[in-house]
Amino acid sequence: MTETDEAKPAELLVCIKCRRGTEIPEDDRRPGARLYDNLKSSDVPDGVTVTPVECLQNCEGGCTVALRGPGRWTYVYGALHEDTDVETLLGGAALYRETTDGLIPWRQRPEHFKRNCVARVPPLTPAKEAANG
Amino acid sequence: MTETDEAKPAELLVCIKCRRGTEIPEDDRRPGARLYDNLKSSDVPDGVTVTPVECLQNCEGGCTVALRGPGRWTYVYGALHEDTDVETLLGGAALYRETTDGLIPWRQRPEHFKRNCVARVPPLTPAKEAANG
Repeated sequence: MTETDEAKPAELLVCIKCRRGTEIPEDDRRPGARLYDNLKSSDVPDGVTVTPVECLQNCEGGCTVALRGPGRWTYVYGALHEDTDVETLLGGAALYRETTDGLIPWRQRPEHFKRNCVARVPPLTPAKEAANG
Repeated sequence: MTETDEAKPAELLVCIKCRRGTEIPEDDRRPGARLYDNLKSSDVPDGVTVTPVECLQNCEGGCTVALRGPGRWTYVYGALHEDTDVETLLGGAALYRETTDGLIPWRQRPEHFKRNCVARVPPLTPAKEAANG
């Protein structure tokens, strides 16, 4: 895809506080932090930044990440496992980065993304109407 | 609060496609659209814009809105009713607007917000570390 090289960057936010419903001893590294570690030690696609964040407040349905980028819808995905979903996430982030609006075509969209979208938020756009008008 | 007048604007995004788990005849106005109507016909706080959006993808847990503003965490809230939660939403939006970071102090936070946060996404900030570094 010729647009790829010109694509704007994308950011993969990872909730590093997530316990993924497990009992974690106080001094153990949490599943969310381990997901972050595993992503950072993998082959992250060009133009994708992996960012640790504190609590995306999907605590009942973690691990949780968000994908965002300039001009694009932000997507929040849950039910991720720190060991088995790393490749899925990186592949999905690469596809997301190739979009201009954040909408990965349905047929290309990873199955996990199809089934575990927690919420999405539209890109910032110029106001279409006056405030409170 | 003296900061109020200088506060940056806030935006209340309302999913107007939401069926709120109900069976809606094809030509009826959906609960999400009626929530939007009810908000717009109410006394919207200064500096708060109410914006209709198409599907925030919390379809199992609607009605759904998002609150966002410059420099602030974006919050997504669900389980709202188009008739009975309008005042709660407008009050919460006013409190949100008064914050600089989007974090309404816990004691002030509406009970509905405490119990029905679907997810939140941090504000855009300068990268703290090199991409993939």
